[in-house]
Amino acid sequence: MTKMIMHGCNGRMGHVIIDLVKEDPEIEVVAGVDAFGENNYDFPVFKSLAECNVDADVIVDFSNASAVDGLLDHCVARNIPVVLCSTGLSEQQLSKVKETATKVAVLKSANMSVGVNALLKVLKEVSPLFAAAGFDIEIVEKHHNQKLDAPSGTAIALADSINESLNNEYEYVYDRSTRREKRPVKEIGISAVRGGTIVGDHDVIFAGHDEVVTLSHRAYSRAIFGKGAIEAAKYLAGKSAGMYDMSDVLA
Amino acid sequence: MTKMIMHGCNGRMGHVIIDLVKEDPEIEVVAGVDAFGENNYDFPVFKSLAECNVDADVIVDFSNASAVDGLLDHCVARNIPVVLCSTGLSEQQLSKVKETATKVAVLKSANMSVGVNALLKVLKEVSPLFAAAGFDIEIVEKHHNQKLDAPSGTAIALADSINESLNNEYEYVYDRSTRREKRPVKEIGISAVRGGTIVGDHDVIFAGHDEVVTLSHRAYSRAIFGKGAIEAAKYLAGKSAGMYDMSDVLA
Amino acid sequence: MTKMIMHGCNGRMGHVIIDLVKEDPEIEVVAGVDAFGENNYDFPVFKSLAECNVDADVIVDFSNASAVDGLLDHCVARNIPVVLCSTGLSEQQLSKVKETATKVAVLKSANMSVGVNALLKVLKEVSPLFAAAGFDIEIVEKHHNQKLDAPSGTAIALADSINESLNNEYEYVYDRSTRREKRPVKEIGISAVRGGTIVGDHDVIFAGHDEVVTLSHRAYSRAIFGKGAIEAAKYLAGKSAGMYDMSDVLA
Amino acid sequence: MTKMIMHGCNGRMGHVIIDLVKEDPEIEVVAGVDAFGENNYDFPVFKSLAECNVDADVIVDFSNASAVDGLLDHCVARNIPVVLCSTGLSEQQLSKVKETATKVAVLKSANMSVGVNALLKVLKEVSPLFAAAGFDIEIVEKHHNQKLDAPSGTAIALADSINESLNNEYEYVYDRSTRREKRPVKEIGISAVRGGTIVGDHDVIFAGHDEVVTLSHRAYSRAIFGKGAIEAAKYLAGKSAGMYDMSDVLA
Repeated sequence: MTKMIMHGCNGRMGHVIIDLVKEDPEIEVVAGVDAFGENNYDFPVFKSLAECNVDADVIVDFSNASAVDGLLDHCVARNIPVVLCSTGLSEQQLSKVKETATKVAVLKSANMSVGVNALLKVLKEVSPLFAAAGFDIEIVEKHHNQKLDAPSGTAIALADSINESLNNEYEYVYDRSTRREKRPVKEIGISAVRGGTIVGDHDVIFAGHDEVVTLSHRAYSRAIFGKGAIEAAKYLAGKSAGMYDMSDVLA
Repeated sequence: MTKMIMHGCNGRMGHVIIDLVKEDPEIEVVAGVDAFGENNYDFPVFKSLAECNVDADVIVDFSNASAVDGLLDHCVARNIPVVLCSTGLSEQQLSKVKETATKVAVLKSANMSVGVNALLKVLKEVSPLFAAAGFDIEIVEKHHNQKLDAPSGTAIALADSINESLNNEYEYVYDRSTRREKRPVKEIGISAVRGGTIVGDHDVIFAGHDEVVTLSHRAYSRAIFGKGAIEAAKYLAGKSAGMYDMSDVLA
Repeated sequence: MTKMIMHGCNGRMGHVIIDLVKEDPEIEVVAGVDAFGENNYDFPVFKSLAECNVDADVIVDFSNASAVDGLLDHCVARNIPVVLCSTGLSEQQLSKVKETATKVAVLKSANMSVGVNALLKVLKEVSPLFAAAGFDIEIVEKHHNQKLDAPSGTAIALADSINESLNNEYEYVYDRSTRREKRPVKEIGISAVRGGTIVGDHDVIFAGHDEVVTLSHRAYSRAIFGKGAIEAAKYLAGKSAGMYDMSDVLA
Repeated sequence: MTKMIMHGCNGRMGHVIIDLVKEDPEIEVVAGVDAFGENNYDFPVFKSLAECNVDADVIVDFSNASAVDGLLDHCVARNIPVVLCSTGLSEQQLSKVKETATKVAVLKSANMSVGVNALLKVLKEVSPLFAAAGFDIEIVEKHHNQKLDAPSGTAIALADSINESLNNEYEYVYDRSTRREKRPVKEIGISAVRGGTIVGDHDVIFAGHDEVVTLSHRAYSRAIFGKGAIEAAKYLAGKSAGMYDMSDVLA
């Protein structure tokens, strides 16, 4: 039985994950950490990791960027693997994540779903093939009207995955209304649609001469991200230091 | 038999229309006008309308904004109805179009296809219903990589049709990457995808609470714009002065 | 405050509606009826309507076809309006519904969502326009892998709405693999996709010469059907005898 | 310069290919074969291959199943590689194709486009991953209203590619309207939409728990099939005996 600490237990994804863990006989939440909110759970909840003295095999994090530095220090000090799902990390924090991974197991992913991670894997393979055949590459993402940032972290992750397979030669463009020119070949347009309660749609479009291939992912609930995080936690417990991602879990 | 002059006969749409007219027993091209290119047609071609002394029932225009002023003067002087398909007209030119319509019949449309015009009609009716039910409204358009402007004239026409039905209270937004906020209710996001040879896709998205309605149009060839223009020409010949649009033709 | 009886309170949609009613200050559930399951609610639950002696302004039904006859008799005997959402009714039952509507208010709809009902309304208007322009009409619906019937009641309702506007001259076809012929003009192909937990997607496709218009609806949760049923219940309470549908509620 | 014979030169795809070859400096048509129609070309056209005494490096075939037996015999007798694009071959003919490939180079593909062949390649890799994660698999194809058969050869090829990667354990289902049951896990539903002039759309849908991944291909003109056939012809000329497919050409 994997013992996990839920970091960010009072957030929306924290609730989703705690509910899902209840249905999984292979893992249990032994403690929660959250700076805000009450403790309505049947496990102890601490205001900070510093106060958390409960033994665990893995920490799952769905908090926010400001809490990540303390989290990483704690993981190293206590030698606990961490599934890192907070987004919007700074360059400095990303460096710290890499350094942390030299000491403990770290799994970081912009999107924990099976589907998006399958797409990320496929894109690395097919992007060079389509680029060589003269196809243009575009991404359209759609999210609910409460989302603050645009484009989504997942859209950026998809673009990065494509770009890495193409020697990072492509630039991202978010707005074409202010220019008047033919589309440059080495660009990836990324469009952000916002409306209603859309959980998260992502379309990767390869547009060639008289044919278009689209790889699309649609999320119907946040549970898919929670499930992925739980699978990642079970996978990561007991692993040696290193940088992991969801493709390791899905393999 | 309707006699038409093709204004912009050597352009891409000029060729498409001339080919389509050959298959239509109710209309014939009696002359062409184009400042550029050779005359490879079996009708006379003139460098300018001023030189064109051929009698006709209607002029179909697919030239460009710079040729429109001369075109409108000619139509008034000769009392000929005109189907005006050039895009990117200035405010001043749009005023001149209205003034011209007090003297001769003018049909102007951002998109001549049956499908887009059916959508324009539908949007006026359903937009207030969806807005009242709290749905957000977004538009995504896709065009080929040679298109200079973004968003497309058709996307703007769709947004305008929606906005008119909502007391023109909505603002258009083309880029969300530079702000960090929840989506304002009274905005219409318009995204422009560019790639390959895509003729023209337009999606109008109504995103509500846990449901999304999408009205989409996809063009497979430019012939649909040509056909619409020919139907418009046949309709407009002999009509009295006034401003017409494709909804009159389709009614 | 509208007092409603939930007929089929232990089914999946019964639970959804009861949860939603809690958040609506204008309506309350005063009793439930279900032949199966326990009473875990804070209102009385009866095995049958015959046993239910609670006063109410309206009954909302999400049970199944076999319970509908008794339901209709009860509504007439007690003079209570009914929102009828059970599907798969026989011809005989449909006749009984009509007869019941001569005595009490009956609202019947294959799909209670704002979006689908907006589509139903639009289809009546645009279908004749597209048919006259030579467009073919097709429907594709997608639902979860637990759904027993195909195509969905909503797909049939969409097709019926189209067909009524076209003098009911079109035939529905569910399988083209067993014939070898060009598509007859006056048919509506209806395809049923089944997979995962898809709540309900419906695409109505108008395919013309080199252009395609698609009107699509996507449900992200069953709550949209529950919300529609509650709006219908509030609308119907106090109404005189007659046949109503969601277009009355949305108007 | 590759010398090719166009087998089926008077068919729709024959015309497309002959036009495209004119623009390609690396290949030329030295003869055509067609049982029907006139010779309007600037190369000799024969009623049958038996009469065709022109030397060539490769034969491209877009005729029909009834002409394939003679074609294969001719290729062996003359030792000419063949790009085989006719569809609807019988089991017996498929055996003959394999046998022929032991003597000359044969490239056979249900769809010659870059995009569809990229999808075929991707599907072999991701299908086992999705199946293991409990996703259901469905295919929807859309074609013009003149197409006689359903589902399309390409849809079958996509399904076969998926099925091969899953130990051929899946059954194809074309109609769900005649049964009333939950979706069996090991089936692939294949739906055929017909309308207008749609050149060919194919969606492969992986539907999981609260997420859906769709891989889609859309053709805008038949030129994409012709271009693929020409690339295949250039590739195949001079190759030794064996069975090839488009993945060899694209590699």
